[in-house]
Amino acid sequence: MVRVMATGVFDILHPGHVHYLTEARKLGDELVVVVARDATARKLKREPVVPEESRRQMVEALKPVDWAVLGTTGDMYDTVVTLKPDVIALGFDQRWDPEVIRDECAKRGVKVKVVRLTGVPERLHSTNQIVERIMVMRGRAKAAKEQAAHSRSAAAPKPISET
Amino acid sequence: MVRVMATGVFDILHPGHVHYLTEARKLGDELVVVVARDATARKLKREPVVPEESRRQMVEALKPVDWAVLGTTGDMYDTVVTLKPDVIALGFDQRWDPEVIRDECAKRGVKVKVVRLTGVPERLHSTNQIVERIMVMRGRAKAAKEQAAHSRSAAAPKPISET
Repeated sequence: MVRVMATGVFDILHPGHVHYLTEARKLGDELVVVVARDATARKLKREPVVPEESRRQMVEALKPVDWAVLGTTGDMYDTVVTLKPDVIALGFDQRWDPEVIRDECAKRGVKVKVVRLTGVPERLHSTNQIVERIMVMRGRAKAAKEQAAHSRSAAAPKPISET
Repeated sequence: MVRVMATGVFDILHPGHVHYLTEARKLGDELVVVVARDATARKLKREPVVPEESRRQMVEALKPVDWAVLGTTGDMYDTVVTLKPDVIALGFDQRWDPEVIRDECAKRGVKVKVVRLTGVPERLHSTNQIVERIMVMRGRAKAAKEQAAHSRSAAAPKPISET
């Protein structure tokens, strides 16, 4: 039984997450996903949009995932010692150094293989891109509304004296 | 073999979607989900953030879903005739009238049971709420940045004559 571990914030789920987890699952017989706590996400990336327990539930609802747990706010290797994975799958954009992870796990008595997965070159494969798109769409909607209000006032009947 | 059909835009997936689909799946033996086309979403709700094929893939990646298909931009009952469901599951916030749906399906030779599911009273159970939260968070981040810039200029050394 080869246990694979994957990690991430998984703030707003997108096809890039599904790709990462599907590929991670293929590296073994079961996939456990460690979902970053809100405090950790805040420290490493930014304030998450979706709260931690909802993020965990969403990840666990995905087909390639056997179970999803919340991480620790302390030493991240505590979770590795608890879960004892055989393989740790790194996403293409996760900056951890595979050798450092392997050594730190070995120091704690956990022998793991660390595998770096590749990404897919498609649109909307990051939560930041989704947030940016929302901002752009909202900006456009506001501009269109202002333009419409302007057109209405420009199209209003002029005083008779001017016609 | 009881086939259940569920429908929606599923723009940014959240626990409310997973709840709806999990409950829908319990009404039969297989669940097929019809994901609204971009043109339909635009007409009925608003411009979707995530494009239709990505929305379809995300829905199909969820455990309760057997398969997900894109809907039609024409008569929505065409899809019912194609898929021939035994049960149509309506979400708690979907405004369709169950009797109208049943009658329209019957007219087209498809005998269906229409079931209205209930929602769950939790946070972030609509894409609009998620979009609003992003807007509020972005507004706060901008205000904090402006405040910090203001504090920095206020804390700048004053001319010697004033000290």
